[in-house]
Amino acid sequence: MRETYHENLDSVVADLVIMTGLVRDAVGLATKSLLEADLATAERVIGEDAPLDRMHDDIEARCFSLLARQAPVAGELRTIVAAMRMVADLARMGDLAAHVAKIARLRYPEKAVPEGLTANFELMARVAEEMVTTAGRSLSERNAHDAGLLADSDDEMDELRKSQFRVLMNKDWPYSIEAAVDVALLGRYYERIADHAVIMASRIIYVVTGLAPEGENWSLA
Amino acid sequence: MRETYHENLDSVVADLVIMTGLVRDAVGLATKSLLEADLATAERVIGEDAPLDRMHDDIEARCFSLLARQAPVAGELRTIVAAMRMVADLARMGDLAAHVAKIARLRYPEKAVPEGLTANFELMARVAEEMVTTAGRSLSERNAHDAGLLADSDDEMDELRKSQFRVLMNKDWPYSIEAAVDVALLGRYYERIADHAVIMASRIIYVVTGLAPEGENWSLA
Repeated sequence: MRETYHENLDSVVADLVIMTGLVRDAVGLATKSLLEADLATAERVIGEDAPLDRMHDDIEARCFSLLARQAPVAGELRTIVAAMRMVADLARMGDLAAHVAKIARLRYPEKAVPEGLTANFELMARVAEEMVTTAGRSLSERNAHDAGLLADSDDEMDELRKSQFRVLMNKDWPYSIEAAVDVALLGRYYERIADHAVIMASRIIYVVTGLAPEGENWSLA
Repeated sequence: MRETYHENLDSVVADLVIMTGLVRDAVGLATKSLLEADLATAERVIGEDAPLDRMHDDIEARCFSLLARQAPVAGELRTIVAAMRMVADLARMGDLAAHVAKIARLRYPEKAVPEGLTANFELMARVAEEMVTTAGRSLSERNAHDAGLLADSDDEMDELRKSQFRVLMNKDWPYSIEAAVDVALLGRYYERIADHAVIMASRIIYVVTGLAPEGENWSLA
């Protein structure tokens, strides 16, 4: 019985790692759909959000069952509680990727991101994808050090968002109001994906070390 | 010991109800700071976000301790798990209220919301505040029926956001790009406050009935 319990707990963590990979793919594909005005890819990302949500429900139910049947303590309890939160972060990141794809779909066959901000969004998307990748690897390897690096990547994301606002707020903005609104919301979505990766990292650090990371970069929600 | 345990669990729920009231106040004050360009009130909302975050940390730690020490099952386990999620929703709603206040502060002494959208934001804010109030009352009374009403209020919020987009995207938008960007982000913040109230309602229904509500209005994160 005890062995099965550990197997169940390990399989929850293994599935979280798999889900992190799926979310990273969703972010990558959403970016492709956005920057290339690729409708088929946008539809794919939007369609694959429901399976991610079902994966969320499944993992959450298994965590709940572990809590109910096993009365875990210490490190195991920390892992299960953290898993329940990480799966919610991952589902939310999947939603945000779908939001990006929905804007791509809404503007098709036009591109939602104007020429002058394409490079900025490419960088944002790359940082976001790398953050999700690092979160997945840190979880898989129980590596608190690598998880700790995510707070720095988040600073990079904040800088990219600031430079985006400088372009937007420049009096010579040559594009439409619609484009400005799209850019503002898209920037917000990528920033939130990065935020959730940082939150996920803080939970990994908590699982590995038993301590919550400190400092202003570690937001809680 | 067992009695103390129930007292502890009841006090967690009681504190969640109190926190819901504080969040509702934060949303109301943030709206006042926004629509009246009231700097002092904006600063107050921003300053009161940290105490809300500390309240989050405290309630979360008490939930964790109940899980670790008491091996709760059935309804009690549901309540503790739901409480850990609700406290995260509430902290997030507090963050969003602070985001609203930060835009008010950024544009002071100007008003961030242009004249033509003031009425729309008044309605959005009223719906959001009422939703938070209903969530708190439903939790306090363990009233799944009232919690269920929140999905309808969320439809109202969605309609308000749509009408906001129609104004924004109208070719005759007479205001600046800056105003359009502010409106788009502010609308998003109120919409997310409403989303979190709906998520909170779904957790209340789960605690009371043992079942997750079904239907497309019940988003998970």
